Amino acid sequence: MARVKMTIAYIGTGFAGWQIQAVKGREQPHTVQGVLEDALADLLGSRVRVHASGRTDSGVHADAQVVHFDVDDSASGINWAGALQRRLPPEISIVEAELADSDFHSRFSCRGKVYTYCLWLGRGYVPPRLKDFAWASGPLDISLMEQAAAVLIGEHDFAGFQNVGTPIEDTVRVLESISHFPLPLPGEGRAGEDSPHLAWRFQGNGFLKQMVRNLMGFLVYAGRGRLEAQDALRVLESGDRTLLEFPTAPACGLSLTKVLY
Amino acid sequence: MARVKMTIAYIGTGFAGWQIQAVKGREQPHTVQGVLEDALADLLGSRVRVHASGRTDSGVHADAQVVHFDVDDSASGINWAGALQRRLPPEISIVEAELADSDFHSRFSCRGKVYTYCLWLGRGYVPPRLKDFAWASGPLDISLMEQAAAVLIGEHDFAGFQNVGTPIEDTVRVLESISHFPLPLPGEGRAGEDSPHLAWRFQGNGFLKQMVRNLMGFLVYAGRGRLEAQDALRVLESGDRTLLEFPTAPACGLSLTKVLY
Repeated sequence: MARVKMTIAYIGTGFAGWQIQAVKGREQPHTVQGVLEDALADLLGSRVRVHASGRTDSGVHADAQVVHFDVDDSASGINWAGALQRRLPPEISIVEAELADSDFHSRFSCRGKVYTYCLWLGRGYVPPRLKDFAWASGPLDISLMEQAAAVLIGEHDFAGFQNVGTPIEDTVRVLESISHFPLPLPGEGRAGEDSPHLAWRFQGNGFLKQMVRNLMGFLVYAGRGRLEAQDALRVLESGDRTLLEFPTAPACGLSLTKVLY
Repeated sequence: MARVKMTIAYIGTGFAGWQIQAVKGREQPHTVQGVLEDALADLLGSRVRVHASGRTDSGVHADAQVVHFDVDDSASGINWAGALQRRLPPEISIVEAELADSDFHSRFSCRGKVYTYCLWLGRGYVPPRLKDFAWASGPLDISLMEQAAAVLIGEHDFAGFQNVGTPIEDTVRVLESISHFPLPLPGEGRAGEDSPHLAWRFQGNGFLKQMVRNLMGFLVYAGRGRLEAQDALRVLESGDRTLLEFPTAPACGLSLTKVLY
């Protein structure tokens, strides 16, 4: 057996998320994992399970999702990037592929992740190229968002920021950093400090289901003055997502930027 | 009569270019002008002709195309950006709209244009988000391209860089500048100096049909060492596009960045 570690990028817009879903009696939803496994089956002549560092929701993008899969030793010499890319739709690109140690596991070896969430702060007009890649939040008070972010950073029980209805046992995570930086407009090389295109970056040792989107939703409401920084403490301490009203940020603004090993 | 000046942005990928085409007995191709005029007809109850600063080819994008159209005085108070945007597909955004003097003409008042052409210099992998917005040219020698660009800048007869088979009388144009700058990767705020995502910007007092794409095709061949800077002189002086072999750069990398009045 040879284990292949592969980094892939995808536009999540047209996919029902990463993970293959068991749907009885209906057509299988279009998932990144499904498309990738179909391409591998076409290449190898037999089905192989592909494991990712974690799921991404429907509509969420990835610049560098990491996956692994096992193949017979006889297949270990394949030029994976080239051979697979030809069998994939343009929404999925193979960034790199390499043989990995047999104890490497895309999910269990992962020691952290970096996500980027993009906002469009302008009023009205949204550049068409950004519509599937940013949340058109409108104007926000960035300093209020920074104050709320400062409360959220650190080791906390993030149960109050996970998707309602997906209880798991251990909801303590270390949110190592939340930062933001201006993004250029499409076709521009540099962003002004007051660019309406703004990225928020989240790095942590792990993230609960929809945690980044809930953190972003909280921060945007903080930036609108609808929530205060200290409200973040209330959500953290209570573990109750429904205690305060804030949205789960839309999937389109989110991208998995890096998986740390 | 009131004249409305409107700046629009669009993703050209799914359009057969800007201009409505007369096609007998077949369905009208999907054009930006057609979609815009349909939206206006829906809003106003009657058809209005929309004039652009110039055509864009099939697949070419615009960050700030400028158009104008005339409406009855009774319609002059309409919030064009809002009312029209609701009737447009997501690939078209209205950047701004305002009433203009009756002697303003999107095409005839234009005194220059700025185009941006984006390249992806990486080997193999292309980020999915860039596939419709860059030419994956592979590695290029930028200094060779700069030498060729220096020959092309200035007032010249650009007949040799226009689309073959579209003769027009006056083919002299002033190419005011050709510059390049690194673009960040998707989701990144800054580009390293050696970023594989590279923009070339062309500013001139006017451009012939496919002129930017032919200039870019020439520059890329120069950057591959297949043509020399002085070959540009041969094309300019002969006016013969077929004298040397170089490609018309793909439409997807090109965007109309600004129209100057």
